[in-house]
Amino acid sequence: MNYDEESIKLHEELGGKLEIRSKFPIRDRNDLSIAYTPGVAQVCREINEDPKRVYDLTIKKNTVAIVSDGSAVLGLGNIGASAAIPVMEGKAILFKEYSDIDGFPICVNTQEPDEIINLVKNIAPVFGGINLEDISAPRCFEIEAALQDIGIPVFHDDQHGTAIVLLAALINAAKLANKSLHDLSIVINGAGAAGTAIAELLLCVGHDPSVCESVKEIIVCDSKGAISRTRQDIANNVTKMKIAQITNRQHREGCLGDILQGADIFIGVSVGNVLTSAMVETMNSDPIILAMANPTPEIMPDEAKKAGAFVVGTGRSDFPNQVNNVLAFPGIFRGALDARATTITNKMKIAAAYALANHIADPTPEKILPSVLDKGVAQNVAQAVKDAFE
Amino acid sequence: MNYDEESIKLHEELGGKLEIRSKFPIRDRNDLSIAYTPGVAQVCREINEDPKRVYDLTIKKNTVAIVSDGSAVLGLGNIGASAAIPVMEGKAILFKEYSDIDGFPICVNTQEPDEIINLVKNIAPVFGGINLEDISAPRCFEIEAALQDIGIPVFHDDQHGTAIVLLAALINAAKLANKSLHDLSIVINGAGAAGTAIAELLLCVGHDPSVCESVKEIIVCDSKGAISRTRQDIANNVTKMKIAQITNRQHREGCLGDILQGADIFIGVSVGNVLTSAMVETMNSDPIILAMANPTPEIMPDEAKKAGAFVVGTGRSDFPNQVNNVLAFPGIFRGALDARATTITNKMKIAAAYALANHIADPTPEKILPSVLDKGVAQNVAQAVKDAFE
Repeated sequence: MNYDEESIKLHEELGGKLEIRSKFPIRDRNDLSIAYTPGVAQVCREINEDPKRVYDLTIKKNTVAIVSDGSAVLGLGNIGASAAIPVMEGKAILFKEYSDIDGFPICVNTQEPDEIINLVKNIAPVFGGINLEDISAPRCFEIEAALQDIGIPVFHDDQHGTAIVLLAALINAAKLANKSLHDLSIVINGAGAAGTAIAELLLCVGHDPSVCESVKEIIVCDSKGAISRTRQDIANNVTKMKIAQITNRQHREGCLGDILQGADIFIGVSVGNVLTSAMVETMNSDPIILAMANPTPEIMPDEAKKAGAFVVGTGRSDFPNQVNNVLAFPGIFRGALDARATTITNKMKIAAAYALANHIADPTPEKILPSVLDKGVAQNVAQAVKDAFE
Repeated sequence: MNYDEESIKLHEELGGKLEIRSKFPIRDRNDLSIAYTPGVAQVCREINEDPKRVYDLTIKKNTVAIVSDGSAVLGLGNIGASAAIPVMEGKAILFKEYSDIDGFPICVNTQEPDEIINLVKNIAPVFGGINLEDISAPRCFEIEAALQDIGIPVFHDDQHGTAIVLLAALINAAKLANKSLHDLSIVINGAGAAGTAIAELLLCVGHDPSVCESVKEIIVCDSKGAISRTRQDIANNVTKMKIAQITNRQHREGCLGDILQGADIFIGVSVGNVLTSAMVETMNSDPIILAMANPTPEIMPDEAKKAGAFVVGTGRSDFPNQVNNVLAFPGIFRGALDARATTITNKMKIAAAYALANHIADPTPEKILPSVLDKGVAQNVAQAVKDAFE
């Protein structure tokens, strides 16, 4: 099937993928008087008197804004707000299909972080949560951080959704390899939004010993090699300086090939074909390769296997172990909305990853993650996220 | 029926009145690949290359934002964004029911005109039109004026929706009274958003002689009487100064009772019980009374009739001739969306009023406007609006 052609045809025929429906038909004057004026005035009054009632009486409790400025859309780059709409509509239909959430695309005509922050604060009343999407680094960090106190959860899916699914994959892969998370030496290739969030989440794992174990070491590489406090060229890069502070405790230097020697896990959120067989062969026994560059992974699964990889995952649907955010975000927002959470904490993210991993009773090297079509996943993730909210 | 209780019950049971639905079910990997990645990338590319394609390929062509800051909601006043949501949801279901438009409530957490203007500009990509709602005067004028060049129609319904329905009522009432529009002497009581828009629209009528006739004279009164260029107290009120410039050509002074003597039409957009029988008795023969204060009209219909009124309309559903915006806005936006209009011109508004008036083949004093439940109205209005767009 030619997906490009089919997709254009579908979008033209449907005229967009979403529809707003009324839950209440207007058949007569009574209906009008109850759903609209004069009856609706009393509903307004109750919310005015007790603001919490907005969750009982409006769409807020089930509605999430999918906010993008179109600056980092799929592999297409900075294509702007209008061209990003089809992706945000797609996200909205996934919200609906997987966890019955009403997602609505807000594609914004500005790429100024301050304007986006202000806009999200100002549109917040109608929404129970904000899914930030396809906003380029480092702006995404600033925008998300500034929105953590607006009273509803704000979650940049490209960062945390990816990190959660990745952690779930890692939990099951480590289990299969008989390795404990706190013995793992991990190399992340790619220091963008996803790489940073993965490093941060993996470092949080274990801060609450009742939740899980921590990992032994993480080193993040960019195109110039290991990020460390000794690197002069990153002095003005806030994100990379932060990575240098929290990872690479031994200040190791060198290119990806050097750093990977003896490591247990390779996590790729970079570009295609940067991981060679020779590098995989220098890793610890039973190495785990999660090569998520799209559409071409950092190494093709068969090549990685031949070089000794024990488990391989990619971002693609045509290989086993697809790391896909749809395994996480519908359940995460469902749980957060049901808990009326004001924020999504690391504890909630880690609980989501464990629920996702545990959704597979008996993982195998070919199946460390559920299928993206398994609609039971979101329910389990939601329950875990809800339970983890305090 | 107790509308207050029933309305609260309905809103609680439904948890808000709107739902976002996917038009395309995700059943298998092919569906995912067409509606979402990788297929959707081609849809994004086409819009990026040819921005007009956003109308063919996304929800833009059928989606309207209902934007309110909650500063002037129904008769409740400035209740803020959250408490305004139930009204905006109600508006969205009317859009859906009457003209199959997908309306989505955007209730904004700011009442600064500049912030609202900027926000609407920034969220515009997803929407084919903007319905401003329940924003208090004079801020509503500034906000709407600043948004006329953003490429999609921006229409403050409390102003223009009311003015259009009012003009339609007037067209049929004048026809019944055998009066020509250009012979009419009109008094508008109330100089807020609606009063100002009504004066402006009635003055436009006739600028294009192919469309219709103009009116003879309009005088707008506020609580202190006739607005005229000679009034010292309005020097700092931009809106009233503008009204003074365009109406009351003879600079008449005096209270409502003085001004109404000999007038053909009373249009009330003010407060209850300000019009007395004695005042009606001083008007020209067969006076037309459109008393739209809610819930208590400027004069009750039976009292007006007793005093000699030939036709009486109110804003209420329990009397004949209900002047209700739902007769206009669904058809106006339908027509504007179908025409891909970038703005809603006076010509389009006047065409809408004539279509609305002409929807009644044989008007009577008890029926100068269609029923709010007549869902055929929107279609006629839409066609007229579409045809009037140039």
